[in-house]
Amino acid sequence: MAKDKSGKQRRPRAETPRGFQDYFGAEVTARADMLRQITDVYRAYGFDPLETSAVETVEALGKFLPDVDRPNAGVFAWQDEDESWMALRYDLTAPLARVYAQFRNDLPSPYRRYTFGPVWRNEKPGPGRFRQFYQCDADTVGAPSVAADAEICTMLADCLEAGGIARGDYVVRVNNRKVLNGVLDTMGLTDEAAQRDAVLRTIDKFDKVGAAGVKQLLGKGRLDASGAYIDGVGLSDDQAAPVLAFLTSRADDPAKTLANLRDAISGSIIGAEGVDELETIATLADAQGYGGDRVLIDPSVVRGLGYYTGPVYEAELTFEIMDEKGRLRQFGSVAGGGRYDDLVKRFTGQDVPATGVSIGVDRLLAALQAQGGGQAQVAGPVVVTVMDKGALAQYQTMVGELRAAGIRAEMYMGNPKDLGRQLKYADQRNSPVAVIEGSQERDGGVVLLKDLALGAALASNITTNEEWKAQPAQISVARADLVLEVRKMMARARNAD
Amino acid sequence: MAKDKSGKQRRPRAETPRGFQDYFGAEVTARADMLRQITDVYRAYGFDPLETSAVETVEALGKFLPDVDRPNAGVFAWQDEDESWMALRYDLTAPLARVYAQFRNDLPSPYRRYTFGPVWRNEKPGPGRFRQFYQCDADTVGAPSVAADAEICTMLADCLEAGGIARGDYVVRVNNRKVLNGVLDTMGLTDEAAQRDAVLRTIDKFDKVGAAGVKQLLGKGRLDASGAYIDGVGLSDDQAAPVLAFLTSRADDPAKTLANLRDAISGSIIGAEGVDELETIATLADAQGYGGDRVLIDPSVVRGLGYYTGPVYEAELTFEIMDEKGRLRQFGSVAGGGRYDDLVKRFTGQDVPATGVSIGVDRLLAALQAQGGGQAQVAGPVVVTVMDKGALAQYQTMVGELRAAGIRAEMYMGNPKDLGRQLKYADQRNSPVAVIEGSQERDGGVVLLKDLALGAALASNITTNEEWKAQPAQISVARADLVLEVRKMMARARNAD
Repeated sequence: MAKDKSGKQRRPRAETPRGFQDYFGAEVTARADMLRQITDVYRAYGFDPLETSAVETVEALGKFLPDVDRPNAGVFAWQDEDESWMALRYDLTAPLARVYAQFRNDLPSPYRRYTFGPVWRNEKPGPGRFRQFYQCDADTVGAPSVAADAEICTMLADCLEAGGIARGDYVVRVNNRKVLNGVLDTMGLTDEAAQRDAVLRTIDKFDKVGAAGVKQLLGKGRLDASGAYIDGVGLSDDQAAPVLAFLTSRADDPAKTLANLRDAISGSIIGAEGVDELETIATLADAQGYGGDRVLIDPSVVRGLGYYTGPVYEAELTFEIMDEKGRLRQFGSVAGGGRYDDLVKRFTGQDVPATGVSIGVDRLLAALQAQGGGQAQVAGPVVVTVMDKGALAQYQTMVGELRAAGIRAEMYMGNPKDLGRQLKYADQRNSPVAVIEGSQERDGGVVLLKDLALGAALASNITTNEEWKAQPAQISVARADLVLEVRKMMARARNAD
Repeated sequence: MAKDKSGKQRRPRAETPRGFQDYFGAEVTARADMLRQITDVYRAYGFDPLETSAVETVEALGKFLPDVDRPNAGVFAWQDEDESWMALRYDLTAPLARVYAQFRNDLPSPYRRYTFGPVWRNEKPGPGRFRQFYQCDADTVGAPSVAADAEICTMLADCLEAGGIARGDYVVRVNNRKVLNGVLDTMGLTDEAAQRDAVLRTIDKFDKVGAAGVKQLLGKGRLDASGAYIDGVGLSDDQAAPVLAFLTSRADDPAKTLANLRDAISGSIIGAEGVDELETIATLADAQGYGGDRVLIDPSVVRGLGYYTGPVYEAELTFEIMDEKGRLRQFGSVAGGGRYDDLVKRFTGQDVPATGVSIGVDRLLAALQAQGGGQAQVAGPVVVTVMDKGALAQYQTMVGELRAAGIRAEMYMGNPKDLGRQLKYADQRNSPVAVIEGSQERDGGVVLLKDLALGAALASNITTNEEWKAQPAQISVARADLVLEVRKMMARARNAD
């Protein structure tokens, strides 16, 4: 046992570690169902499963060796016996890059894989911010064609619908890093590398500060909400204009959006390539019926623009929810991805084009819960109570008959001295029916069935259903008819729901 | 990038971390299927799902704070920002104890939960020994009755059969720590604590050294296979006799086994309680049809006897496999469990009776593979080849039609300049059918379907099936009949299998 400060032995604390979570009952099955729904779509699209270990070498994850003062920068890391650093994966893309580089001679090309599982972030935990959460990814490695990007976008729409998001409640927005590169080329930047970085960092704030804010930040600077003055990049209005044109180029008509983008890049070759790619994505999505508001070209999407090398996509849920402060706001992003053509190069030196998407499964579950209002309960088992300790084998035989008929069932395993406690347990388990057989019943060849769904309905005062009230809460049935009568009672409860 | 010893930048190595594994395709789906089969049984028995995080505090895991020289004794551990130690769970039982202690006021009692997931062991990796593997557990917490143990044993038999192990190919063996305690009580040990420990450690070697070896080790000592002399516990033959009687008490007739055990404990109260428990388990298992060789009282099972406090069970697969050295041997243990009544006490100070089982899913998968000879392949997607880069939308429309009909399908996403390469890709993906549409076909309103299953069958020379040979490997069908004709071709391949 651990010792406290006064040197006394104390018991260990039973606490979920900081920033982590435990999931019970329906929380677990709801996530499993959603993962199956999404991976069924991935599978139908021809992606194959891959499961890597939770652990990678820090070297493979692309972090530098941690320094002495702060060994865990962003990841949970430790040293192996041979002194090399290992860490928990922080996403599912870095392990894919490692696997592809390692097994590239044996894998099909393109390699289309899906995967899901927890990822870990060593961040300060906060409200709604967890250090372990689920991602569900699909990527195509070795596919140079923008058709692969278009496919990811339409597949993402299919995944959201398979997961329970109604058409109209989501939009997959698409932007392109190459267009931004084209815009940067036209600006006449003097100190290329540094100013490009500064512009990228500024664009990242577009979501927060809007076009006017970005304009100030690209120029002289801006007084932020806290009253602090943020220095600007120092560009002239003329220099900043193409960036603003790019960010605000979205029009109701997709053709007009593309025309606006062509204006913004004013002849840059890489920029034109980017606009062409967006046009192809729009055309392909449209041809397959995903056009309009399911897959949408939207240059105001800036998340990930710095990281990816080509098309960037983000799925947003457009319905409104009440936030913690009681204000309505859009639910927002649940998935994102893009093209990252230099991911495998770190390992092999070879360019390998790749594109993919990551769905934040826990975010999506939270969205469904916000929309549906609460979590479904797991349907509880029929509970066979124990009235006579000498008859355990008979009770277990009943349970066995019920299970063989496909009915979830269990014998009460606690201390059986008190029937009230057993029924309370059955209620807590959300059981539909309790089975009671004392020696009197056994001698008479009957069992008692207690309709717990009815009991719960009456107790909650939410029903005026006459059918409910007409039903006795407890009936005596022939022992031989146990399965039949339990099934009837459960069907009645379902119908009255 | 990392630097090597000469100070030069070098690329990160693309390597699965030492002791870990990557799982591809059918390896992933086979495990998912097995987990579903097992948890379906757990669910039917009334157990509810729980998923804890992969991370626990070292304190909760029951390890002392790691020392400076060897911070990772058995577990992968690291220090959090607040200096507290965290670690990856090494099993699924320790997290259950923590959760039960933490949430006991809100959980039903008994609390019946199932869970599955990877666990991590910081051990030196070796052949077939991995540092991450899957367990799938079910436990009943708060159940004092031995009926709960009996249930776990019969459920374990059901799980193995649901997972694909044939009746007759497994046995669930049951022993009881209380019987051993009774035996220890009768031995007239002089230095209680130390000698008990020594006897327990000796019994653990029973699997390796047999009854004669245990007898020597309980007495003066024994020359082991390497030629080293192992000092014995120093007991007289009379003192050692009850232990040997206990270990060798199993008879063909279960009633005789129990009688032998009653002799071995010669009147010890705790021992008699243990034998009574074994008798109840045998009676309950028998009454439900699991008696005889499915659930078997077997005092020679010693694994876990030191750890558990009551009944101990172990599932063994009894069929033989060829080991690495070409010798036939029984496959052995795939699951184990028992009663551990003091697990929650560490946290709360209260006694909480608990019993449960852990199924080693990866071991079980290896057993099925050893039995069935190899892994099934994932059925590959239909591949629509790209003959004309201008027609991507049309190809994607075909793919969409196939998917809408429930057929796994994809458009080729690599560089499409070479049809041979596309067909090679389709073969590698185990595709049943490739679809080809050049401009000529499009003008004629047809597509070509290539029967890749037929091609593979012919190429592998394993078929003399006349039906195969009579089929052309490639046919031209009306574009409008794409789905119908692909389905026909796939059905033919299945029938010819």
